Amino acid sequence: MTPALEEIRHSCSHVLAAAVLRLFPEAKLDIGPATESGFYYDIDLEHKLSAEDLGRIEDEMRKIVKENQAFVRSEVTREEAAALIKARGQERYKLGRLDDIPENETVTFYQNGDFLDLCGGPHVRYTSKLKAFKLLSIAGAYHRGDEKNKQLQRIYGTAFETKEELAAHLERLEQARARDHRKIGKDLKLFHIDEEVGQGLVLWLPKGAVIRQELQNFISEELRKQGYSQVFTPHIGKLSLYKTSGHFPYYKDSQFPAIAEPDALQQLADTGCSCAELTSRLEGVSRQLADGLNARSGQTLIEDERVMDPERLLDGFLLKPMNCPHHIKIFAAQPHSYRDLPVRLAEFGTVYRWEQSGELNGMTRVRAFTQDDAHIFCTEEQVAEELLGCLSLVKTVLTTLGMGEYRVRVGLRDPDSGKYTGDAAHWDKAEEACRQAARSLDMPFTEEPGEAAFYGPKIDFVVKDVIGREWQLGTVQVDYNLGVRFDLSYIGADNKEHRPVLIHRAPFGSMERFVGVLIEHFGGDFPLWLAPEQVRILPISDKVNDYARALLARLRAADIRVTLDTHSDKLGAKIRRAELEKIPHTLVIGQKEAEADSLSLRSRALGDEGVITADAYLARLKHEIATRALAPARGDAQA
Amino acid sequence: MTPALEEIRHSCSHVLAAAVLRLFPEAKLDIGPATESGFYYDIDLEHKLSAEDLGRIEDEMRKIVKENQAFVRSEVTREEAAALIKARGQERYKLGRLDDIPENETVTFYQNGDFLDLCGGPHVRYTSKLKAFKLLSIAGAYHRGDEKNKQLQRIYGTAFETKEELAAHLERLEQARARDHRKIGKDLKLFHIDEEVGQGLVLWLPKGAVIRQELQNFISEELRKQGYSQVFTPHIGKLSLYKTSGHFPYYKDSQFPAIAEPDALQQLADTGCSCAELTSRLEGVSRQLADGLNARSGQTLIEDERVMDPERLLDGFLLKPMNCPHHIKIFAAQPHSYRDLPVRLAEFGTVYRWEQSGELNGMTRVRAFTQDDAHIFCTEEQVAEELLGCLSLVKTVLTTLGMGEYRVRVGLRDPDSGKYTGDAAHWDKAEEACRQAARSLDMPFTEEPGEAAFYGPKIDFVVKDVIGREWQLGTVQVDYNLGVRFDLSYIGADNKEHRPVLIHRAPFGSMERFVGVLIEHFGGDFPLWLAPEQVRILPISDKVNDYARALLARLRAADIRVTLDTHSDKLGAKIRRAELEKIPHTLVIGQKEAEADSLSLRSRALGDEGVITADAYLARLKHEIATRALAPARGDAQA
Repeated sequence: MTPALEEIRHSCSHVLAAAVLRLFPEAKLDIGPATESGFYYDIDLEHKLSAEDLGRIEDEMRKIVKENQAFVRSEVTREEAAALIKARGQERYKLGRLDDIPENETVTFYQNGDFLDLCGGPHVRYTSKLKAFKLLSIAGAYHRGDEKNKQLQRIYGTAFETKEELAAHLERLEQARARDHRKIGKDLKLFHIDEEVGQGLVLWLPKGAVIRQELQNFISEELRKQGYSQVFTPHIGKLSLYKTSGHFPYYKDSQFPAIAEPDALQQLADTGCSCAELTSRLEGVSRQLADGLNARSGQTLIEDERVMDPERLLDGFLLKPMNCPHHIKIFAAQPHSYRDLPVRLAEFGTVYRWEQSGELNGMTRVRAFTQDDAHIFCTEEQVAEELLGCLSLVKTVLTTLGMGEYRVRVGLRDPDSGKYTGDAAHWDKAEEACRQAARSLDMPFTEEPGEAAFYGPKIDFVVKDVIGREWQLGTVQVDYNLGVRFDLSYIGADNKEHRPVLIHRAPFGSMERFVGVLIEHFGGDFPLWLAPEQVRILPISDKVNDYARALLARLRAADIRVTLDTHSDKLGAKIRRAELEKIPHTLVIGQKEAEADSLSLRSRALGDEGVITADAYLARLKHEIATRALAPARGDAQA
Repeated sequence: MTPALEEIRHSCSHVLAAAVLRLFPEAKLDIGPATESGFYYDIDLEHKLSAEDLGRIEDEMRKIVKENQAFVRSEVTREEAAALIKARGQERYKLGRLDDIPENETVTFYQNGDFLDLCGGPHVRYTSKLKAFKLLSIAGAYHRGDEKNKQLQRIYGTAFETKEELAAHLERLEQARARDHRKIGKDLKLFHIDEEVGQGLVLWLPKGAVIRQELQNFISEELRKQGYSQVFTPHIGKLSLYKTSGHFPYYKDSQFPAIAEPDALQQLADTGCSCAELTSRLEGVSRQLADGLNARSGQTLIEDERVMDPERLLDGFLLKPMNCPHHIKIFAAQPHSYRDLPVRLAEFGTVYRWEQSGELNGMTRVRAFTQDDAHIFCTEEQVAEELLGCLSLVKTVLTTLGMGEYRVRVGLRDPDSGKYTGDAAHWDKAEEACRQAARSLDMPFTEEPGEAAFYGPKIDFVVKDVIGREWQLGTVQVDYNLGVRFDLSYIGADNKEHRPVLIHRAPFGSMERFVGVLIEHFGGDFPLWLAPEQVRILPISDKVNDYARALLARLRAADIRVTLDTHSDKLGAKIRRAELEKIPHTLVIGQKEAEADSLSLRSRALGDEGVITADAYLARLKHEIATRALAPARGDAQA
């Protein structure tokens, strides 16, 4: 966002607030900043704003723009500021916002027309500069983002320097809405989220499961070529495992609470203990409970020495926050020689995060997701080559899916932060290995301090979809630290013990998120190899049903996902139905086609492709699927 | 066990106790019954018995047999019995055992030689009748099976009527030991259980994962042929889901405790509540805790009315005890017409059971296992045909794996038990459908009242392995009840709502248990299609390494799991290593073989098969793998 655009958007938010006060003088204002995609204002108002109100507010904004009001800046003392706020009856939120301004900063107001707002500026000089804006929606927003506070009404809008830019942005928004994976996922019956199963927990419907399985098959093939071994591990692990790995308590706030050991609970109940002991020992089950009790009792139970006695602390199980500790245990199950390395362990492994319910979003933000995860255990000398292998895998995956436009971020540690484990020399080596590997991609990359994982630096791929939005997908991470925490070793050529380096990587990232992004990327129009239903056969009349059934059997025998529509309705209705379901190929069969062992092909990609023989069609289908083609080249139908 | 054999085994346990008392007069006896496979005696003795002691005890038993003591029965009053027990210093356990005898029963003792024991009999007449017995092992056993009691030493033995029968039994035991999947699983690096991950949680090592994946591919192929759809569902679900399904509290005692909702916990901590409230509201987290507190406080907190208020009760998540509720939610996500039915949803779905740690056993008794699960939603008219499809699938699976010897059990409800849900008319229909389907198998089956699932009757396959042991594997269940609990419906041809019937089925049952059984069934010698490493190439010298590498590449390109052993040690050592790893084929390559593009084949199944061309060999490999052959026919090598 340029400074000029930021001024426009910020000014729009003032005009928005002024318009609201004209219509609803009782409204209490909180704040109204510019954002990456527009602006908003948070307003406390008894009346629940409707879409109709939004139109009225926008009309009022246009009037203010027409009045060509000047934005006037004034500096005031804190006392004057408080008096101004009170004089306008806006003390409910604005006095708090005034307090937020650091002591050494000047307090300023901006006025346009009657409207006066506590504000650091800057703004445009006249409201007539606001030529291209639009109000978009109303949402609930807690004051200061804290759900213990009152929920206000947030009015969203957007603004640009020119009407053309605004129109283009609104068009993109419209496209994004049409591609929304939640809508398409429901229409095409790809996935379902059920309140009774739980928010953020994805049920893959049969058609969505086909897409996931095809993607898994695809990546599994690539993994076999690269010499990976598949493993399966349970979705839970003992709390102590994650204490060793550092995932607990590091990730505690984003984890599901632990599951207590029934035996330990029984023992506790049998032996008896006070309420305070009980609660504090339940750390694994919920530290939050203990925190709450601490606050109420006014004493810090959780740091009581009896509680810290590890013998008396309950153990339990965690839903796994990451797959690494399990893979590490597989590596550690056997002694290793340098000749065995690298050991590459891959798993479609499910991990769990406790996201706040307000942050959940379809498949792209969930509470349980399956990573196309793998861990490579290698010697220090092998790190560079293994990293190249990982990056090449990510590139293959993205290119195959038509996501060739991406940028690369190298996430480094923030040297001033204490949250990273491991010694500095190892971090330096790992960071340099990541830089080297990123350089090999022959494209610019950015270095981002503070973006590393807690155990090591990483290389992220940020992919641009067809409508220009960016998604962080594939990731590759170098790790010198978990090897130390789990005391991993291999016997080197020198017959001595050495520490292996770990590489963590996931080209898709998460199957749920990746498929969510793919749905939007393709707008539901999946390439043939991914389409849940690839072909639908539409006989024109009952007379050709026998041929249609024979064709169905022939395609099924070739593992094509094909159905036959023998409903009694008209051909037009059948075609329309197949179009709504975005089925890549429909084969219309009439008497002529049946006699010539042929079919009339309509493809989503190329439209009406005319009549071709069944033999030629099957060959084309097989080729397009086997090569995982994104789209057929025009003319392929004749091949 | 015949009555005669029971007499022999029970008499052996008396002779065992008598021998122990001769060697350790201070020993205190508990009980010593005959069992299905032998006998044991539980003994309280300070001295920890060793394998050597076992030999000495057995020698002493042989002396007693030689002395040809008579077993003499005597009836006594309870007072006399107590006096006899005290006179012998055996009051520690025997007085309690005396109390166990119902008031109206006669108290009897049996004496042989000096040894006198409280016992109902009957026994053999003379110890010389005990011709064929052997002591086997010593294990810890809690008095009365309660871990709060003292742990005693249990001496296990076995006995038969003839020496031949004993020898055959010992031979079977030896075979079972050699085939123990825990030992083979470790030797062949198939799976690993790690204390830090958790007992009963299987880590599938790369080689074990190959077997599982091949089995999954196999069954997935069969499922596609039968028109199943694959789905994926999360491993957790809300507690309320399982209250609807009836899995909670029905299965509560065999479940992991629930995971509390962090939000609900936070609210609880924020609002504050007393210790009693807190504990009792944690029902989902651990009812056990509350029970323990109830016992200590002397009041029933858990039935307090405040606690039973559902508004105030915590919700949470359960690790799923079964996959059905998730599949039901997928079915219910869309409206259905009779034309869509049957809907067949399949998933390799993991479920969780809280088994006591003493009951865990390798892969065959675990706490998390993956079912090859599916649920069929069909009309009542379709039940019979769908059941046939399920049984045919189970038969295909078992036959392919060489487990053609099985018996079938139809599990019916116990009409006197209240634990079954649903109405009697539905149960009658479902039970008759199971009987009909079982009849179609053209083999005798047994009906077992009380063995049904809580929601419906079932058909189980009990498979005999190569050494004659029985395993309950595949299962098919008919269910008229969950449809009611979840209010499922479809629109019939009559345009009215109807209730679908559910069929639950799992041909393998559990991947963990099935693979555990398969390891023992094959003794680790898997057929080619399942073998983790199928082929190993052994070059005789470095001179033929180029040819060996070309052969390796050629086999790999054909998706054969093959390795090349270029270690510098002798051919004999390489062959020995491949044998220990039970690799089905080793290909020895010398100069002659390299020149003729051929190889010298040694197979586990047929031994040295001589030299064959690489072309012929590859064709044979592909055929044997594609047909999932159990073993090659002799002479195939020449094909």
